[in-house]
Amino acid sequence: MDEIIMIASERPELNEPILVEGLPGVGNVGKLAAEHLVDQLKATKFAEIHSKYFPPQVLLDDEGVIRLVSNDLYYARGEGERPDLIILVGDYQGLTPEGQYELSDFMLKVAVDNRVRRVYTLGGYGIGRMVDNPRVLGAATSVQLVEEMKENGVVFSKGEPGSGIVGASGLLLGLGKIRGVEAVCLMGETSGYFVDPKGAEAVLRILSTLLKVEVDFSALQDKAQQIDVITSKLKEAEEPQEKRREDLGYIG
Amino acid sequence: MDEIIMIASERPELNEPILVEGLPGVGNVGKLAAEHLVDQLKATKFAEIHSKYFPPQVLLDDEGVIRLVSNDLYYARGEGERPDLIILVGDYQGLTPEGQYELSDFMLKVAVDNRVRRVYTLGGYGIGRMVDNPRVLGAATSVQLVEEMKENGVVFSKGEPGSGIVGASGLLLGLGKIRGVEAVCLMGETSGYFVDPKGAEAVLRILSTLLKVEVDFSALQDKAQQIDVITSKLKEAEEPQEKRREDLGYIG
Amino acid sequence: MDEIIMIASERPELNEPILVEGLPGVGNVGKLAAEHLVDQLKATKFAEIHSKYFPPQVLLDDEGVIRLVSNDLYYARGEGERPDLIILVGDYQGLTPEGQYELSDFMLKVAVDNRVRRVYTLGGYGIGRMVDNPRVLGAATSVQLVEEMKENGVVFSKGEPGSGIVGASGLLLGLGKIRGVEAVCLMGETSGYFVDPKGAEAVLRILSTLLKVEVDFSALQDKAQQIDVITSKLKEAEEPQEKRREDLGYIG
Amino acid sequence: MDEIIMIASERPELNEPILVEGLPGVGNVGKLAAEHLVDQLKATKFAEIHSKYFPPQVLLDDEGVIRLVSNDLYYARGEGERPDLIILVGDYQGLTPEGQYELSDFMLKVAVDNRVRRVYTLGGYGIGRMVDNPRVLGAATSVQLVEEMKENGVVFSKGEPGSGIVGASGLLLGLGKIRGVEAVCLMGETSGYFVDPKGAEAVLRILSTLLKVEVDFSALQDKAQQIDVITSKLKEAEEPQEKRREDLGYIG
Repeated sequence: MDEIIMIASERPELNEPILVEGLPGVGNVGKLAAEHLVDQLKATKFAEIHSKYFPPQVLLDDEGVIRLVSNDLYYARGEGERPDLIILVGDYQGLTPEGQYELSDFMLKVAVDNRVRRVYTLGGYGIGRMVDNPRVLGAATSVQLVEEMKENGVVFSKGEPGSGIVGASGLLLGLGKIRGVEAVCLMGETSGYFVDPKGAEAVLRILSTLLKVEVDFSALQDKAQQIDVITSKLKEAEEPQEKRREDLGYIG
Repeated sequence: MDEIIMIASERPELNEPILVEGLPGVGNVGKLAAEHLVDQLKATKFAEIHSKYFPPQVLLDDEGVIRLVSNDLYYARGEGERPDLIILVGDYQGLTPEGQYELSDFMLKVAVDNRVRRVYTLGGYGIGRMVDNPRVLGAATSVQLVEEMKENGVVFSKGEPGSGIVGASGLLLGLGKIRGVEAVCLMGETSGYFVDPKGAEAVLRILSTLLKVEVDFSALQDKAQQIDVITSKLKEAEEPQEKRREDLGYIG
Repeated sequence: MDEIIMIASERPELNEPILVEGLPGVGNVGKLAAEHLVDQLKATKFAEIHSKYFPPQVLLDDEGVIRLVSNDLYYARGEGERPDLIILVGDYQGLTPEGQYELSDFMLKVAVDNRVRRVYTLGGYGIGRMVDNPRVLGAATSVQLVEEMKENGVVFSKGEPGSGIVGASGLLLGLGKIRGVEAVCLMGETSGYFVDPKGAEAVLRILSTLLKVEVDFSALQDKAQQIDVITSKLKEAEEPQEKRREDLGYIG
Repeated sequence: MDEIIMIASERPELNEPILVEGLPGVGNVGKLAAEHLVDQLKATKFAEIHSKYFPPQVLLDDEGVIRLVSNDLYYARGEGERPDLIILVGDYQGLTPEGQYELSDFMLKVAVDNRVRRVYTLGGYGIGRMVDNPRVLGAATSVQLVEEMKENGVVFSKGEPGSGIVGASGLLLGLGKIRGVEAVCLMGETSGYFVDPKGAEAVLRILSTLLKVEVDFSALQDKAQQIDVITSKLKEAEEPQEKRREDLGYIG
């Protein structure tokens, strides 16, 4: 079989669209943000991408009907200042380095075929501790883009992330730069321990400004609250007994 | 060499056969069930499939004659209401995700070449504890198939299995759906700790109704009893001394 | 680069030669036996095989000159009853299942090109304990070959080896059977813990009878003695103090 | 996408240049040495090599602009006795054996295209303990080269390195020998625990004599001093308390 199979249900005519990528990764920040954008814009799925670089797995819907794991492309037509968008979300990233390169290369070809004029990749930046007000760090294919992003509140901090960006969010920039496609990566700070809707909100707030999209964040905020409840319970449970006794002493 | 090699000893003319797959997996439920079906129907082997996605291994028969590890295709002609069948059994599944995709893709091509009109994949659903009356859970490529299965006693339970279906039993459905081949996965509940003929019997009871096949389950039941003896002995051996003392106390 | 590169320094005209394979494996039994045969017959190297399925590694000779890791083909012309021989030895087996299949397939093609009429693969059969008089177990591509081997002292024991034969020694038989090349695997019993010249001697004694080759085993026996010295020292060192005290008590 | 992509910004006409390779490896000795040579000669980058055998990763510069991980080719024109040079440095070596072979094969083709007349590969030889005056060990594709190296202070010591040379520094020799490209590996002794500028200096001192290059080592020596400070601090921190008490006792 072909290494990558794209099944397109439609070939939308779009006007120099922007590609937004949000695949699973650190804290699932990018995936949550991109999926929320799909919901908010009521974007239309137009293609499914399957590949032997994904796990050999099907997922079940609530009825018991399966679907092969995939990456999916949605589009949303622009309105006023808002540009046409293509949004890439999915179940998995490629399992191997080779798979990562092949899949990102494929996505870029699809982008070029659709005359995409810029790519935004969304991800998380794991910092190993809980964070209340996540910054959104950036990386880009040119100095001009870096400047444009800074004006929109994206943080560029020397040495962060020190190890660069691994996976689709990085490769779409790296391969994009080689192919002359301008691209920006937006990374929401996150502990890296949990799925993090708060990091996703931070990323999406910046992106919605950049794309002139109106976004209602309440659904993401609800999810964030649920996670908060779980993590505080976990914290309590983990807190050593002695520590709590001490606390009581202090209160008393 | 070719990635997959099929050596066919015969090309049977079959009438829109049903393909039944039972390869090694959780509790070997699918493999046991499919092999029992081969035995019961005295099905005829017509093709061997070898692949570099299988382990580089030969197996020995009782005389010391080797055979290269393989997946094998059997056929059994229908009788009365019973349809023509192709049964896929084998020593291994593909070792890598890529191998899994390539092999399932190959099997589906063979199915289409043989005008297969439906695929049943058989597997186990590991639940991490011993189970006396295993349910048979299902997944399918369409809502209509789900309904048909429900009428035949297959359980569709939202969120089960939560992580989807991995391996050939899943991929034949996932790739089948893409290619327009209707397919159903039947999963017998099993602890996942042992080879489980009881789970295999449960799956085969449903399947035999669906296929109008008469099946004598005594051989499977004998195997199940043997496993039961082994597992109870293991349980006794593992039971901590104190626990037994307590028990005596309780009895006393 | 090509997956497998053969550099032949010569193309010997051989008369329906026998191929003997001895690559690294359990106890290096096969490699030791085949290399000893090369030495004894003063066989001539005629081809080197390199492959990206081997480790990316060069080895150094005593002068500091490197050579790329390889599998090597030697030939020895027959004499009297002794047939022409091709002997395959080398530094490594393929690192992956795919590599194993590709390399064995390649070797078989070379064998067929050279009109090889039979293949002997040599290996070890690890039994997890020291053994003084190693048996030589067999496996073959046909019942006739099994019978012929039995007459020559090869042991065929139902269920041994239970897990079949993994690697080149198995695949040359498995793929050979498919291609109509008759092949036998001879496995010398070995602990599996050490390089085992004793196992190699056992295998080579049988093989030398089969091939009508006169073999002087003294070099192998010297190596075996060296290993014996090392292993007895290790045993002493490992023997627990109490055990030895007990022993003294018993003697006293 | 192609397995390996070379993006050349220039095609310099060079006069039978020497290729010097220094990629990451044990103690990063080769990389440090080659990068120092690039700095000292103010060599010009003329090609970037990307590959799916590298990690799927981009790195960020201080401004936040990304670049895809790569291997890079620099050239420096000769002067007087100094020959034209091509220097290969980079972020990573290939991740898999196959990748290693493909990349080294590719580099050799580039070398041949540029009429390279000799290859020097630079690396570290890990000896598992700190070393004050690292020797430079050698390996080469011919006895003549070994002799020439010995005259220039390179140590050839039977059995060192016992396990041969793994990775690009070995493969360029191994594949080079097959293709008729003469090549030498220079290995600076190093503990293998730290990035080791001292080992790099040792290698580069020999190489600079061989290439008639004037090298100012002060930058490497500064780095070495920084590493020394760090390692002595680590040593102190690790030294067990008791040990220090003892020491005091001894002093007292």
